[in-house]
Amino acid sequence: MREGILFVISAPSGAGKTSLCKEIIDFFPELRQSVSFTTRFPRAGEQDGVDYFFVSPLEFRRMVDAGEFVEWAEVHGNCYGTARKSLDLWQSQGMDVVLDIDCQGAAQLKKSCDSAVFIFILPPGVDELRRRLTGRNLDTAEVIERRIQNAEGEIREARWYDYIIINDRLELAAEKLKGVIMAERSRTCRILPLIRTTFPSLRDT
Amino acid sequence: MREGILFVISAPSGAGKTSLCKEIIDFFPELRQSVSFTTRFPRAGEQDGVDYFFVSPLEFRRMVDAGEFVEWAEVHGNCYGTARKSLDLWQSQGMDVVLDIDCQGAAQLKKSCDSAVFIFILPPGVDELRRRLTGRNLDTAEVIERRIQNAEGEIREARWYDYIIINDRLELAAEKLKGVIMAERSRTCRILPLIRTTFPSLRDT
Repeated sequence: MREGILFVISAPSGAGKTSLCKEIIDFFPELRQSVSFTTRFPRAGEQDGVDYFFVSPLEFRRMVDAGEFVEWAEVHGNCYGTARKSLDLWQSQGMDVVLDIDCQGAAQLKKSCDSAVFIFILPPGVDELRRRLTGRNLDTAEVIERRIQNAEGEIREARWYDYIIINDRLELAAEKLKGVIMAERSRTCRILPLIRTTFPSLRDT
Repeated sequence: MREGILFVISAPSGAGKTSLCKEIIDFFPELRQSVSFTTRFPRAGEQDGVDYFFVSPLEFRRMVDAGEFVEWAEVHGNCYGTARKSLDLWQSQGMDVVLDIDCQGAAQLKKSCDSAVFIFILPPGVDELRRRLTGRNLDTAEVIERRIQNAEGEIREARWYDYIIINDRLELAAEKLKGVIMAERSRTCRILPLIRTTFPSLRDT
């Protein structure tokens, strides 16, 4: 057996990360998706334990102090964090995990988990991003402008990710994302432990 | 524009490399496939300039001495080589190229072309390899045993390749190979040059 792979996916809001993550979870039902903890209030339709674990700022602080997060960050005034416990369990069971987290959190993980795979989703351009944020009718014009300003800073972070996927057409971007998952699973370092017993000439490696 | 990517594909004979290469060339018609030079005689149905460039040992020697090959090797008593000229042209035009070469040739390329992507195709096991080699009715029992012995040595080389794809079912292996191609094209170092003008915050990187 090999260790599970951590796929860390970040994107500025409006890049289509949630739809893309859904596509790959549907395609690879064996993938585990980590549910983050957050201090923000649930949006309409969001479920505790499914979309996020919604916790109080006090409980979040306790978890930070207890070292229960592999990463956590404050974004737009709210805190988000990934618990170490389920990640460790899945990885040790050889299960691949998708982590949908922001750049700050990803940067923390990059330091502590070198084997994770970092994927950045980009919108085709800033104008299209504005169009998408406006179209989803979730935010006021002011919030949208703040999101776009934030996005420009976040996009700079794409430089240190392993992969960049431009989400121009969802189906095409989903194909690329699936490709990354299949390719990473086919990396020699991950295949060798699985085939050593099959091929005598690989046994002593 | 970015430089073309070199995908170097090796496999022991009988692993299904030729069928897999055909699958991906059909799927990505923009891929160029390098045609090797060889001193061996054409098999039934093989065409000069399509399957190989068939040349005399003397002409092959001249090309070696003139430095016209990026790699060449002697396999089962015959010489095979890849001409530098068309590779350089395709790469400079940003075209991705598939190179179907043996481990010796791939090892030479690994030294001179660090950016190439090395993919090793494996049969699911040695027994299955024997069954396939017997089934294709191309070789005598003696040649088949020699091929299997060679295969065991070649399989050892899989360790230094970037990716290993087990060709158990052709369609599944083809999906993985396509995945590797899509993933490599999505690598940050290859995407950044294409999107710098689109995103102001990436301009100074």
